[in-house]
Amino acid sequence: MKNMLHRYTYPNFQSKGLLILLLLFPSFVYASGGSEMVINFLWIAILLLFAKFASLVEKWKQPAVLGELIIGVIIGNLTLVGFGFFESIETNHIILFLAELGVVILLFQIGLESHIDEMLQVGWRAFLVAVIGVVTPFALGYFSGMLLMPGESTNAYLFLGATLTATSVGITGRVFKDLGQLDTREAKIVLGAAVIDDVMGLIILAVISAIVVKGVVTAGEISWITGQALVFLVGALFLGQLLAPKIGWVFSNIHTGIGMKFTLAISFCLLFAYSASLVGLAPIVGAFAAGLMLEHVHFQDFDRPQVSQDIRDAVKETNKNTCKKVDAILCKFENQHIDRLIEPLGHFLIPIFFVVTGMQVDLATLADPKILVIAFIVTLIAFAGKLVAGIAAGSANKWIVGWGMVPRGEVGLIFAIIGKQLNVISEEMFSVIIIMVILTTLLTPPILNYLLRKQAVQQS
Amino acid sequence: MKNMLHRYTYPNFQSKGLLILLLLFPSFVYASGGSEMVINFLWIAILLLFAKFASLVEKWKQPAVLGELIIGVIIGNLTLVGFGFFESIETNHIILFLAELGVVILLFQIGLESHIDEMLQVGWRAFLVAVIGVVTPFALGYFSGMLLMPGESTNAYLFLGATLTATSVGITGRVFKDLGQLDTREAKIVLGAAVIDDVMGLIILAVISAIVVKGVVTAGEISWITGQALVFLVGALFLGQLLAPKIGWVFSNIHTGIGMKFTLAISFCLLFAYSASLVGLAPIVGAFAAGLMLEHVHFQDFDRPQVSQDIRDAVKETNKNTCKKVDAILCKFENQHIDRLIEPLGHFLIPIFFVVTGMQVDLATLADPKILVIAFIVTLIAFAGKLVAGIAAGSANKWIVGWGMVPRGEVGLIFAIIGKQLNVISEEMFSVIIIMVILTTLLTPPILNYLLRKQAVQQS
Repeated sequence: MKNMLHRYTYPNFQSKGLLILLLLFPSFVYASGGSEMVINFLWIAILLLFAKFASLVEKWKQPAVLGELIIGVIIGNLTLVGFGFFESIETNHIILFLAELGVVILLFQIGLESHIDEMLQVGWRAFLVAVIGVVTPFALGYFSGMLLMPGESTNAYLFLGATLTATSVGITGRVFKDLGQLDTREAKIVLGAAVIDDVMGLIILAVISAIVVKGVVTAGEISWITGQALVFLVGALFLGQLLAPKIGWVFSNIHTGIGMKFTLAISFCLLFAYSASLVGLAPIVGAFAAGLMLEHVHFQDFDRPQVSQDIRDAVKETNKNTCKKVDAILCKFENQHIDRLIEPLGHFLIPIFFVVTGMQVDLATLADPKILVIAFIVTLIAFAGKLVAGIAAGSANKWIVGWGMVPRGEVGLIFAIIGKQLNVISEEMFSVIIIMVILTTLLTPPILNYLLRKQAVQQS
Repeated sequence: MKNMLHRYTYPNFQSKGLLILLLLFPSFVYASGGSEMVINFLWIAILLLFAKFASLVEKWKQPAVLGELIIGVIIGNLTLVGFGFFESIETNHIILFLAELGVVILLFQIGLESHIDEMLQVGWRAFLVAVIGVVTPFALGYFSGMLLMPGESTNAYLFLGATLTATSVGITGRVFKDLGQLDTREAKIVLGAAVIDDVMGLIILAVISAIVVKGVVTAGEISWITGQALVFLVGALFLGQLLAPKIGWVFSNIHTGIGMKFTLAISFCLLFAYSASLVGLAPIVGAFAAGLMLEHVHFQDFDRPQVSQDIRDAVKETNKNTCKKVDAILCKFENQHIDRLIEPLGHFLIPIFFVVTGMQVDLATLADPKILVIAFIVTLIAFAGKLVAGIAAGSANKWIVGWGMVPRGEVGLIFAIIGKQLNVISEEMFSVIIIMVILTTLLTPPILNYLLRKQAVQQS
């Protein structure tokens, strides 16, 4: 075996003096260098416990994701009051990876709970919502930037506009999921539009960056990017329709227990997330597509066959009618959806993503009153630009669709960071964008929650 | 939000030329720098699929862990035939962390399936097995080292002896678990002895290292290390007996769904794994203790109450006797064990640990015939030293207990690495130890499998 095996558990000792200390007081082995890995057990436990504590907001009929985001904001900003205990989490690669894996699992789950055919039915609606929701905030952002922050370059205003276009599907999707509303027409339109948004946002980012760096961009370059993304998405959906029955057959005919099915499902998700990244899409788009493809797949649950058998035996002596009834219930129970296999992994990873996202919110940016005022106006524009898109929602609730598109989350941030790396965006404009992202991210869950509950009451 | 948020998805661009390339062909963003994180999705999928493929060894009645180890050996040594695709996995911190988390989850599961009271019943047996299994291989290793590899320092022979003492509980525990034999008297003795081994191994390592570095070691230092470890273990078991009913009450009275229970269980496990590392014990010992503590905890499964309700309704009209019978079956089903919550996470993480462990086996060490011969003799000593410990197994099957103690796995490696870092162990002796670890690790699962199946047949 190669000697790197446990180099992640035991540190590379620099001096014999240190070594003897470490060996005699082994607590130090872990508490100092070795803690590199072991400390993550502590962080994960803390993040999960905080997340679950925060999900008590459900008692006030708020979606759990809101609690997770807020607790993240709180522990991420304890440094402001001199308590830096949690600071290292924000740059901890292991935790950041688990968070990334969490949002991939979330979109896979959302894909599993969505239905391709129903999503295609709202396809044109989703496309319209996406287009309006990209064009409006882009134009509003560009012109308001010129008015509010005069003196910056045209490219800076283009970038500001671009940051206002991208929808964060994670947050909206989670609110719909928390409230059990993924089946609604509104959810389908929003999810579809968010995926289309991702493709459009990608193209806009590439084009604007090319203008900034080269001054021009060719139509060929734009088509190449667009083509790759479209081939991936259309290919995934087409393959899904074609392969789903076969995959379902495989799942029903594997008798080696639940582990094999779990492995196939999760590997499928991860391979699609990776493939999406190869054509330049976000991994979450690939995970969502994978979920849509496996959506039709059900399988027999061989997990607890004894229970079903015992119950069937117990009712055998009674009348035929009861037997039939019981049998029908058991069949439904045995006919499991893949989602149930993935669920516990979601419980483990998804809260980590939202708490860590909350931790990235830096409340110190709220200190400068001038920036704050501009930021509020830009935020209003960010709201307005997406709410307008709700107009295209047709028979669906326009407000819910509009608000569903509002959160900018991680996508807007990526735009801002690239703009800063290109030296196009000033520190001032960067802070404005950050505040806009914070507000659209944190205000949407409670508002969407209110609208969805109101609609549910009206319909019942 | 702080601008480090997506630095793990998007690379730090060094030049504008590169940047424009990355932005116009976003595939490159992920395929090059950004792949740092995304590539792990690919690795995880590959490792899981390989592991599941390898678990087909179950068809030949071998434990799945053997297949996982072997597939790991194969893909880890493809570099020998010029195929280096998988090489980066072995130094990938994310994958190594997931593997570490996997073995922690495994020992937590094994703890959950063990019973404190029954473990305490075999306590003295386990202690005797552990002591004999530490003293014999240590003495044999020390003297055979002098005979086989003359000319090294006394300290080198001491270290060789020390590497032969430590038992790897992961591999044996997994074999017992794969074959559903964790309930046997043999399993309890082996698991108990392995934990005691860990404590004794720790003390030996500290003492010998102190002798190497300082020339002497005080009794006070030895007692301090021993004391910490004992206080942790005894404290954990005592607290467990005391708190289990209360924890059980909490678990039964949380009605916020399965997520909360899962979070509490997993956090409990991780906090104990971390705490164990604070007193110098391996995190897996902490996870095992946590499992033992929660072993008594059962809880009502509120996950699918509708199914139970429907069945109860369906049989209501029939006779009282059937109702009672069905009710009893349902109660048993609803009364879930925490283990069922943890299982899917285990499916995800545990195979990663064993495939990665297999990957660490470097077949190139088998090239030198002289070393090979010495290594085989040392391996025979390694087998003999632990098999002798089986004598103390009392009424339990002595061979099963003896073989259960054989695998050295990761623990022996840690000893060897520290010995090398102290410049006590020569390259030659290091190779010998590596081969010994490989052979005890790979040969034990099939042999233990054979013995356990033979015993099961005899008893039935």
